[in-house]
Amino acid sequence: MFINPIQLCKVFSRLLLILSCGFIISIIVGLLYNEDISAFVISFAITFITGSLLYQFKEKSENYRSKEIRSSYFTVTTSWLLMSLAGSLPYLISGSIPGFPNAFFESASGFTTTGSSILSDIEALPKSILFWRSLTHWIGGIGIIVLVIIIMPSLKTGGYHLFTLESSFHEKIKPKIKSVARRIFYIYLLLTLAQTVLLMAGDMNLYESLCHSFGTVATGGFSPKNDSLAGYSPYIQYVVMIFMILAGTNFIIHYYILKREFTKVRQNDEFWFYLFVIGLIGLIVSSALYFSMNKNMEQSFREGFFQVISIITCTGFATTDYLQWPVFAWVTIFFSMFLGGCTGSTAGGIKMVRHLVLLKNVKRMFLQETSPHGVFAVKINNKKLTDEFNSKILAFITTYLMIFAFGSLILIFIGIGPQTATSAVATCMAGIGPGIGSVGPAGNFAHLPDMAKTLLSLLMIMGRLEIYTVLILFSGKFWRV
Amino acid sequence: MFINPIQLCKVFSRLLLILSCGFIISIIVGLLYNEDISAFVISFAITFITGSLLYQFKEKSENYRSKEIRSSYFTVTTSWLLMSLAGSLPYLISGSIPGFPNAFFESASGFTTTGSSILSDIEALPKSILFWRSLTHWIGGIGIIVLVIIIMPSLKTGGYHLFTLESSFHEKIKPKIKSVARRIFYIYLLLTLAQTVLLMAGDMNLYESLCHSFGTVATGGFSPKNDSLAGYSPYIQYVVMIFMILAGTNFIIHYYILKREFTKVRQNDEFWFYLFVIGLIGLIVSSALYFSMNKNMEQSFREGFFQVISIITCTGFATTDYLQWPVFAWVTIFFSMFLGGCTGSTAGGIKMVRHLVLLKNVKRMFLQETSPHGVFAVKINNKKLTDEFNSKILAFITTYLMIFAFGSLILIFIGIGPQTATSAVATCMAGIGPGIGSVGPAGNFAHLPDMAKTLLSLLMIMGRLEIYTVLILFSGKFWRV
Repeated sequence: MFINPIQLCKVFSRLLLILSCGFIISIIVGLLYNEDISAFVISFAITFITGSLLYQFKEKSENYRSKEIRSSYFTVTTSWLLMSLAGSLPYLISGSIPGFPNAFFESASGFTTTGSSILSDIEALPKSILFWRSLTHWIGGIGIIVLVIIIMPSLKTGGYHLFTLESSFHEKIKPKIKSVARRIFYIYLLLTLAQTVLLMAGDMNLYESLCHSFGTVATGGFSPKNDSLAGYSPYIQYVVMIFMILAGTNFIIHYYILKREFTKVRQNDEFWFYLFVIGLIGLIVSSALYFSMNKNMEQSFREGFFQVISIITCTGFATTDYLQWPVFAWVTIFFSMFLGGCTGSTAGGIKMVRHLVLLKNVKRMFLQETSPHGVFAVKINNKKLTDEFNSKILAFITTYLMIFAFGSLILIFIGIGPQTATSAVATCMAGIGPGIGSVGPAGNFAHLPDMAKTLLSLLMIMGRLEIYTVLILFSGKFWRV
Repeated sequence: MFINPIQLCKVFSRLLLILSCGFIISIIVGLLYNEDISAFVISFAITFITGSLLYQFKEKSENYRSKEIRSSYFTVTTSWLLMSLAGSLPYLISGSIPGFPNAFFESASGFTTTGSSILSDIEALPKSILFWRSLTHWIGGIGIIVLVIIIMPSLKTGGYHLFTLESSFHEKIKPKIKSVARRIFYIYLLLTLAQTVLLMAGDMNLYESLCHSFGTVATGGFSPKNDSLAGYSPYIQYVVMIFMILAGTNFIIHYYILKREFTKVRQNDEFWFYLFVIGLIGLIVSSALYFSMNKNMEQSFREGFFQVISIITCTGFATTDYLQWPVFAWVTIFFSMFLGGCTGSTAGGIKMVRHLVLLKNVKRMFLQETSPHGVFAVKINNKKLTDEFNSKILAFITTYLMIFAFGSLILIFIGIGPQTATSAVATCMAGIGPGIGSVGPAGNFAHLPDMAKTLLSLLMIMGRLEIYTVLILFSGKFWRV
């Protein structure tokens, strides 16, 4: 058996114990608001006991290290499934989200930092449940950063590793991987605290500030309010915009900034491309709003940029229903769902660096065709990419689009309208939140059939884990010993 | 100046003289049907005189050969523009298609073998005009085959050359390139004649048989009937289906079959993949029709396969309005617009071999991730592809999709509904014909604004010339001396 059961137990026990801590925090929130906490107590008991039992196996793990990379793929995928299952316990036990497909959808949407919801009246739920819902974002967000920056480089999934850390950097820090993980966790914590304080300075209460900060830093998008951030002041909205941009940035950039290594920041092509794309699309959309919707300049700027940042960073907060915009503006939003933030951030989607590699490949083809005897290389961060690596990146983009097409076809096949189906798949794969059609910012996913909800939940996990980590489990070769 | 004016004159004079021959044939048709032929006489005079004048320069061409590949890109792109402009003369002079954007659209749609039309009542037009309309397909079809099989290999556009001819074959035949061109022209002629005879055997008259054969062999799709092929017998429809498949096949395959070199046919991966994809999607769509539309088995099979073959080979004939099908079926048709036929055929679109390279790259990524130390190569026709070549193919697919997205956004921006806009761009880029929304098989492109028609005409030419041939003219580097 190539799957290492000890590794699996070790990871699962750790995850369940982390979740049980989350349940304790939710219990405290419930007590503060005088709510029924029995669902969280039961959830805590289940996860704590299972986690502790699995922990017993952990001891032997040091002597039993699987050399098989396949084992890691299996562990990573099942970890996200386990979190999503365990995370749905309080929803099911309290009855606040009835039915397994609904609860699983909401929980998977949380841990994958997607933010799509099946709730129509969010504010009707107990505050402790909504707190847990936002907390799943926060846990999923730090999970994905650790996965992508610390674990994936050794998996080499889809050539992703080369961007998350510069290889030299990664070689250097390999011995002290735990200390880097700790620092990145501190950055994550710092961003959350800073945003909470800034939101409270704008007269948002502590509870809502925490929930919104969890949703922002994890680029999740769950809000405890029915109308997301539409009801808050421009100040609050600007704060959220800035933190969405920060959360969609590679955390290694934050690390460099804190270490004052600005040369490394300046050399990071993806970061500047990310800011450029946000600026460009934001300007296009804002201008469209200004010229066609009779809004003043500040309002057009704020509305346009907020939704564009929210979609590109894969957060999914809303300050307005973009389906009320001119068609051109919301179709731009739809296409922007295929962009994604930076690698090594909590953002999902195809991601900026892959688009940059694509553009540089196109440019290279032009150069080569005008000067057939010249030799041109594709460079990122001043480093040449090998052609094999190039193919991997481009194959990723096209695989992503193929899965998008197949997923959409399945949803349409079971009777969902084409706009809703395609946008639901696009928004779930990229971990954004709202789509278009009946799953727009003012709608929700409740009316979809159970089968569609389950498929979308799995697509969220697949998208979150960079497609291949999950897809590889379906290949015959994987299971051959 | 890197553009060779002599080469340009030579090509232009030849094209204009070919078109003037086409006008003479149309004059004969007009005389047979007692129609006003003055428009054709004027068009003939213009093209014949201009062509003959340009012919004077041709003599010196042997001594003045530009070594610059850039000159060829320019010549190829402007050739299709020139044909489309000159081809619109009879429409404009006779007044049968009013307005330049309309006439240019119809003419470009003909020469690019697209088959999208701005005509709402086709049968109201003179028979000679409709004959010319179908003839533009036939001229465009042989033009693209000669371009792709004979000229493009020396341009090396987008790595396309490696598939059109096996390189060994091409090396071998290089000295006798004219004789291959002649044989391929005979095959093209033979297919046209065979289909005409078979259609006439099914009681279609000579005129309609010729028009439909022109439209089929060129994978064009213009029909002299308002309801395309819906009104004809099942026998006629099956004949057209078979010839659409033949026309979407690499003409080198036909050449091998005639030479009885069946090993080469067996080794051609693209050909078998093409048949497999048609079979698979045809079965899916036919089953959907059988189970949801209360049609008998033969009818479901014929309707389903006819439209699927028509879309995949980029022909665009119709025997039914697929927008009346269940949503799942027509969305499958929409996605199929991104497939395309074989290279070296008259079909447009992304083309089968590129999808095959993509799938093999994805498979390779799986293999490499389960066995990180293995070395795997992507093979087509039993030949290894270099990684540089792989990147080119994948970059082509993504560039194609990006242009599709930008084109759609522009159409939406000028006020066209999203379904109509996206499908119009998809169908024109791939050279298919009908789209969805208001440009479906029962609709036409007449109601679109002039700007949209002109943009779509240019996208047809860009798609027909494998994107890069045209795109390269817009790069700054191209014009630098």
